[in-house]
Amino acid sequence: MNFKEKQSFYIKLIEEKLANSVAVDNPYYTSLKEAMLYSLTAGGKRLRPTLALATGEIFGTEPGEVIAFACAIEMIHTYSLIHDDLPAMDNDDYRRGKLTNHKMFGEAMAILAGDALLNLAYETMLRDALAGSSMAKLRAMEAVARYAGARGMIGGQVIDLQGEGRKVDSQELAAMHRLKTGALIKAPVEAAAIISGAGEEQLSVLSNYAANLGLAFQIKDDILDVEGSMEEMGKRPGNDAVCNKSTYITLYGLEQSKRMLQEVTDEGIAFLEGFGSKADFLRELARALVRRSN
Amino acid sequence: MNFKEKQSFYIKLIEEKLANSVAVDNPYYTSLKEAMLYSLTAGGKRLRPTLALATGEIFGTEPGEVIAFACAIEMIHTYSLIHDDLPAMDNDDYRRGKLTNHKMFGEAMAILAGDALLNLAYETMLRDALAGSSMAKLRAMEAVARYAGARGMIGGQVIDLQGEGRKVDSQELAAMHRLKTGALIKAPVEAAAIISGAGEEQLSVLSNYAANLGLAFQIKDDILDVEGSMEEMGKRPGNDAVCNKSTYITLYGLEQSKRMLQEVTDEGIAFLEGFGSKADFLRELARALVRRSN
Repeated sequence: MNFKEKQSFYIKLIEEKLANSVAVDNPYYTSLKEAMLYSLTAGGKRLRPTLALATGEIFGTEPGEVIAFACAIEMIHTYSLIHDDLPAMDNDDYRRGKLTNHKMFGEAMAILAGDALLNLAYETMLRDALAGSSMAKLRAMEAVARYAGARGMIGGQVIDLQGEGRKVDSQELAAMHRLKTGALIKAPVEAAAIISGAGEEQLSVLSNYAANLGLAFQIKDDILDVEGSMEEMGKRPGNDAVCNKSTYITLYGLEQSKRMLQEVTDEGIAFLEGFGSKADFLRELARALVRRSN
Repeated sequence: MNFKEKQSFYIKLIEEKLANSVAVDNPYYTSLKEAMLYSLTAGGKRLRPTLALATGEIFGTEPGEVIAFACAIEMIHTYSLIHDDLPAMDNDDYRRGKLTNHKMFGEAMAILAGDALLNLAYETMLRDALAGSSMAKLRAMEAVARYAGARGMIGGQVIDLQGEGRKVDSQELAAMHRLKTGALIKAPVEAAAIISGAGEEQLSVLSNYAANLGLAFQIKDDILDVEGSMEEMGKRPGNDAVCNKSTYITLYGLEQSKRMLQEVTDEGIAFLEGFGSKADFLRELARALVRRSN
């Protein structure tokens, strides 16, 4: 399989698993399942679960061994988007070309659907770890929890929140992205590596690759917010400027941001050298993220 | 130690552990820790963690073996209160005699502090299970996750949400309480029993005790909302009526509700027979909840 074929193969696996992951079956609250699935199956790049599957394959780990964690991390990502879009937060009406969760189901339900997705992520990982009586999966789960929490993604969301409407320096912006976006991109890579029995050295270089990928992802997002179109992105571009947010563009300008994007990506790819051709997919994925238009 | 002394001993352990549980130390977001601790250390009855410690003691399990799970469940309870109090949900200004989280820190921070507490609950349990390489704790965590999620507490919150402003029948009200309050009262009892190596039969009777305790707790809450005072409860009584909520009082009347409270409590206590005097604390706790004024 070439890169595109393998990517499609991964995404198909992920979409199927996600669509069947919400096993809520109660006549009194069918709407909760609907709200959870609405955002969970809204498409998107599926970058995080793809990273988990691809990292597993470096070690010859079957997708089935990693898919539960892959989907759990996508659930965490999805809940964070639902809560981020709320009126009290970014107040977005559209996400991935569809109405945001609270626009469809109301604010209260969106809050609860987000909560339920975060909890479902842990239920999913716990059931998977229990089924295999796996201590490695317990360790992987601990890594995911750390990256998802107050010292990871949520910490980044708080920095973001506190930076609105004031000038943020490059150090604070870097800390914000490392946590808000970077943490949950490291999570699938490290979790899959731990499940695959990676050594400390392998875990460390993969984590560095993921950190660079996360940073590149964010720089590209900021570029797209200036250069992208509503059609391609499925949401309104120029939103950062409207919200008066500090971005790579406001700090470094468009041209230097583009150079940084390329440098950070190349550096990330360089970390994979020791894995030879087994890491080709991860290399190509990093390059594809530079080229993306949404 | 008599009941009161033992209860104080448990609560002291719990308060200490909770106060030291938020290890977020980042200059960019000290306010997150503040918001999390504000609600986590706001007092309250500490019913859920107390239940975990007391259930452990039936089996001779040291409090130290159960305290992490006890506090994790209190974190889950606390996050659910923060989100429940939000303007889009119950829109409460006071909780336990203090301003609600969003009134103190703003809505966005309250949403994130709630998310962070839910996540911290899992981080806490995971670290504890990892430290002991404990498969029993993995199983206990799975039970907690099930009771906290869409098929448990959150499912109950959704039923509650959908019942506002319309007449709810007794079956739906029972389902709502079984999930919204009952699930997270079962969680500490079952988790502690699993950690303690309880057999299926023991687990089942303890679960039945907890189910009755949860139901009694809810009936008493409804009674207090009619009979209680702002001073004693730390929040505005009569809120159910204002919100046009269906309660045990609206369905059965005050007198029958009081009879039901006593019956349900007695039945719960009866489940503990096989444990002899070891379960005295759990019996006394059930009786204390009937007498409580807040």
